[in-house]
Amino acid sequence: MTWRNTTDRACNTGSEKMQLGLSVSDSDASSFTPLVVLELADDTKAEAITWLLNRIRDKQQNGGAELLVDQLLFPAQDGQKSNPNVFVVGSTMQRLLNGAEDVGLFKEFQDGTMRGFTYANRESFKDFDGDGEGFLSDAECQYIIKHELDTLRAKNEEHVPGYPKLKLYPGKSVVRRLQSKGVLIQYFPLHNKEDLKRLSFSWYKKIKLSFQPLDDIRHYFGEGLALYFGFLEYFTYALVPMALIGIPYYLFDWEDYDKYVLFAVFNLVWSTVFLEVWKRCSATFAYGWGTLSRKKAFEEPRAGFHGALGFNPVTGREEPVYPSSKRQLRIYLVSVPFVLLCLYLSFYVMMVYFDMEHWAISIYHESPNFATSILLFVPSIIYAVVIEIMNLLYRYAAEFLTDWENHRLESSFQNHLVLKVLVFNFVNCFASLFYIAFVMQDMALLRQSLATLLITSQILNQVMEAFLPYWLQRRRNKKVHKRMWRIMGDKELPLLGQVQLETEMNTYLGTFDDYLEQFLLFGYVSLFSCVYPLAAVLVVLNNITEVYSDAFKMCHVFKRPFSEPAANIGVWQLAFETMSIIAVVTNCALIGLSPQMKAYFPESETQLILIVVAIEHVLLAFKFILAFVIPDVPKHIQVKLAKLEFDSLEALKKRKILEAAES
Amino acid sequence: MTWRNTTDRACNTGSEKMQLGLSVSDSDASSFTPLVVLELADDTKAEAITWLLNRIRDKQQNGGAELLVDQLLFPAQDGQKSNPNVFVVGSTMQRLLNGAEDVGLFKEFQDGTMRGFTYANRESFKDFDGDGEGFLSDAECQYIIKHELDTLRAKNEEHVPGYPKLKLYPGKSVVRRLQSKGVLIQYFPLHNKEDLKRLSFSWYKKIKLSFQPLDDIRHYFGEGLALYFGFLEYFTYALVPMALIGIPYYLFDWEDYDKYVLFAVFNLVWSTVFLEVWKRCSATFAYGWGTLSRKKAFEEPRAGFHGALGFNPVTGREEPVYPSSKRQLRIYLVSVPFVLLCLYLSFYVMMVYFDMEHWAISIYHESPNFATSILLFVPSIIYAVVIEIMNLLYRYAAEFLTDWENHRLESSFQNHLVLKVLVFNFVNCFASLFYIAFVMQDMALLRQSLATLLITSQILNQVMEAFLPYWLQRRRNKKVHKRMWRIMGDKELPLLGQVQLETEMNTYLGTFDDYLEQFLLFGYVSLFSCVYPLAAVLVVLNNITEVYSDAFKMCHVFKRPFSEPAANIGVWQLAFETMSIIAVVTNCALIGLSPQMKAYFPESETQLILIVVAIEHVLLAFKFILAFVIPDVPKHIQVKLAKLEFDSLEALKKRKILEAAES
Repeated sequence: MTWRNTTDRACNTGSEKMQLGLSVSDSDASSFTPLVVLELADDTKAEAITWLLNRIRDKQQNGGAELLVDQLLFPAQDGQKSNPNVFVVGSTMQRLLNGAEDVGLFKEFQDGTMRGFTYANRESFKDFDGDGEGFLSDAECQYIIKHELDTLRAKNEEHVPGYPKLKLYPGKSVVRRLQSKGVLIQYFPLHNKEDLKRLSFSWYKKIKLSFQPLDDIRHYFGEGLALYFGFLEYFTYALVPMALIGIPYYLFDWEDYDKYVLFAVFNLVWSTVFLEVWKRCSATFAYGWGTLSRKKAFEEPRAGFHGALGFNPVTGREEPVYPSSKRQLRIYLVSVPFVLLCLYLSFYVMMVYFDMEHWAISIYHESPNFATSILLFVPSIIYAVVIEIMNLLYRYAAEFLTDWENHRLESSFQNHLVLKVLVFNFVNCFASLFYIAFVMQDMALLRQSLATLLITSQILNQVMEAFLPYWLQRRRNKKVHKRMWRIMGDKELPLLGQVQLETEMNTYLGTFDDYLEQFLLFGYVSLFSCVYPLAAVLVVLNNITEVYSDAFKMCHVFKRPFSEPAANIGVWQLAFETMSIIAVVTNCALIGLSPQMKAYFPESETQLILIVVAIEHVLLAFKFILAFVIPDVPKHIQVKLAKLEFDSLEALKKRKILEAAES
Repeated sequence: MTWRNTTDRACNTGSEKMQLGLSVSDSDASSFTPLVVLELADDTKAEAITWLLNRIRDKQQNGGAELLVDQLLFPAQDGQKSNPNVFVVGSTMQRLLNGAEDVGLFKEFQDGTMRGFTYANRESFKDFDGDGEGFLSDAECQYIIKHELDTLRAKNEEHVPGYPKLKLYPGKSVVRRLQSKGVLIQYFPLHNKEDLKRLSFSWYKKIKLSFQPLDDIRHYFGEGLALYFGFLEYFTYALVPMALIGIPYYLFDWEDYDKYVLFAVFNLVWSTVFLEVWKRCSATFAYGWGTLSRKKAFEEPRAGFHGALGFNPVTGREEPVYPSSKRQLRIYLVSVPFVLLCLYLSFYVMMVYFDMEHWAISIYHESPNFATSILLFVPSIIYAVVIEIMNLLYRYAAEFLTDWENHRLESSFQNHLVLKVLVFNFVNCFASLFYIAFVMQDMALLRQSLATLLITSQILNQVMEAFLPYWLQRRRNKKVHKRMWRIMGDKELPLLGQVQLETEMNTYLGTFDDYLEQFLLFGYVSLFSCVYPLAAVLVVLNNITEVYSDAFKMCHVFKRPFSEPAANIGVWQLAFETMSIIAVVTNCALIGLSPQMKAYFPESETQLILIVVAIEHVLLAFKFILAFVIPDVPKHIQVKLAKLEFDSLEALKKRKILEAAES
């Protein structure tokens, strides 16, 4: 919050701008619906602001974004001046519809299929009336504005006016440059209070057993988040049969670890079918939301990407170029050794945990009483907490390293980050369980560790993820409300107040952590739940509260995120599938270790192992064949997609024949 | 050859047509270059012929193909009348260029990238001069004509004129219908004698160690075949290191089966890298040939597909519909049991072979002399011959069954056929080897069987595939030459003679059998060659002759096939990859069985097995990671593809902004 120290200068530049003749509104009564908030640093030079606003307002033919912008001026609040450089951006309906075509939005056509929206054919789309009011959802409008701002490119400016050091070159995204240099602090979409109230009521305010309103979530937050909540719900429902089978195992205390062969087999089939069916569900969602056949836009370099100016071989434009060999060196000489070091550390901590465990047991054996029996659980709890802390710390390190690797594209950055985090989290969370299961072969300890790890990490997660941010947010809210009330009295300033509130909210960093949590839970269930059948029950309970706390945090704790068009859960599908393959191997090994199986082959251990290995190979082969045979997209959607393609081919052919006849 | 019995009538219809005023040339001096030959049954009704020719000649606007057709009339040959209903099809250059756009041909642009050809931009393509003569290769022209003939659709005709039973409906492909009802006997592209002579000289007439002229092959036979020959060459070269390592193994008689651990490890790495690198080679070829980014045309139903008339959900057109459930029933209730029965039969034959083997050995032991030592090889040779015969018979049965399953699309038909044939061939060829290796654990016998199987099947293959057809063809050629000479005297009739010769040549049934042979050879090498290191040497020798015999058979034994645009080797890539996974498992098991490994773990067999299984899992995981990490398309081609996409997006954007500015 450095700008609070430079209040006076900021105030000056504010009034300078007034004299410069910018259209600055001093009330919230804007002439357009504000959709996106732009916050510039409060010491931004006036000429830079003028230039930026002009570029945003300029016509598209002149290389502008052709959007509407207005400045918001907050009244002084007892010595605490707010940032004067806050702007709201909106757009005319016509511009939005043109933008919808630019970003390649798919909307429902009259005949019920999803088609790429074009302005020329707008009348043929379902729900398009008059000038198109209400045709695009809020999230879509905001996404379009974000796209137009992101693709606002420098023309012949050599640098940002007023900042000789902020170099530009033709074609460089202006917003990315301003953002990476800290002039543009943030830009985010505004909440729509009406819609939010309606959404939150149908989503989580009533306790019910119905499905989540995924379409409404998608309308408000976009496809990426809706898909996450769809997955969360699907996963939870899929776990119910597993949980139902687990309960009698637990209740009737089948503690002889003999019965778990049956459970392991069930586990195996379940984890395979679960993911294959999800792919089809996800395709159905994505088709209905118009993201399935939507083409990816050409990806811009990340905001943080830097390098010497060179020529992009694809676009032929001048832009920063960073040799791939240098990046490879950074990855293999720094990142990989670092990850290995962290893994070693994780193993070391694990061994310390086993020492502690050993020590606790020996104390319990010396004097078995209530205090020492509770002591038995202490090492596991400490270990669970340490695991969470290590995961958190590693997360920051991984983000720093991946950023330092200087990936050109956001998608490549994300892939490297996910890979780093997944490998570490997997080892950190599951190494001790594997060690107990296969090296120590102590099923009682495995059961106890699994339970403690699972319960502790769930509690920690819920607290860290929702309640803590909520509590912090509430405190902030109260302060802002009080402040606003003190200045304005009973004058209502909904927009100003809302913007000020939301500007200070935390930013939602994407679905990464949410998916990661589900990934680890999936691991606990699919890898070892045959030893501790209650795991599925615990995960179901966790996920039911997770739906509510995630919904709540999206609506009230974080800034509204920009909608993210997504056709599937991306790299997470691969991660879950890899986990389910590991689960086949683990479960087969657990079956092989079971006393029940050993009883079948009393003389020859060799034969037992060979049979287990053979079964494992057959199961893996079966799994691959299943994944290959089950189509990823349901038949009825395949037909619709084929129809769309056929229609466009036919139209093209007709046009060509007509053209040939004319000429 | 039924038409020979109806000579008189055919002759009559021929002269009838003359009276009907069709443009029939009575000499070979056509006014256009004949590219494709159409052969109708010799008893085809005159009105059907008139109608078909009119439809072929009619303008595109009227739904015709706008091609040039001419009839070929063969003079009577001492009582043996030739079929009078033979036509040659050609086209104007302008029509071909338009057709090139219709089929979505990619050609090299001025800037060196490959772009979809459009007639409007024709001048911007490399090598386009004047009216475009020489711009399209022969194979491309013939492919375009085939496409135009195939997509010649019925308009409002209810049936083929003269054939009330040959029903038509709007949109039905006329050629497919005529073909499936036997009115159209065949249509095939003509050889170009000049080009053929040049190609065959550079391809196989000179003994040399250089690469094959793949670009010329592609020019003459199209991408599908060129890709096969490219793969054959690549595979052969890839085998050379394997063969070089194998020779000392054989020469120094490392017969103690101890050394093969090293060879198995090499085998393993080789088979993984081999396929990954091929994918990149294939992408490079396909890019240069313009098939990599070419979109697949909308697939028409197969010629043999039948069903009740209904509506196609995709096109909305009336066409035969066959319920998928019925097909599933046929597959699961008939085809699958049949395949299983055949597999059982194959196992039964294998057991008979082992009995014979046993009997031969016992005779040898009774009186070991030269005659009985040769007898030792007899069972293997008989078994190899029986395997080839069974493969051949099964092939016919599989084709019949897959046809009966009534698949709508050619691609689906092919997939089901390939799957059936592959499973049976795999079991039939390798079951005995697996049995010897893992059940009998007799490495000496494995070696002997492998050698006999490999050598016998190679000899049989070369004979069946090239020499036998060549010999038959030579006899036919001589007869035709003699006949023509007797009639014409020394008048030269190159076109008539050529057409008559080629009409009677065998049809090349596609690359299926050629790939299948390579697949089995790959199996012999990757699965067991560590036991018999000379296998790779034998396969290399086989493939060197294979290149020559395949080249020869394409040029002189078979009819010229239509070019097939292919971007990769399709389902065979998957087949080879599956084989290489099986190879990992087999090689690991062979390592586990080796006396060398057993010597390391003298006490504990269990530990040995666990370690081998662990190594196998690591190798499999490594294989998958490798396949995932190595990009399927080389970087420089990715850049070119991205550039193409970027350019078209930019052009679209510019056009839109211009349109918006105009309106």
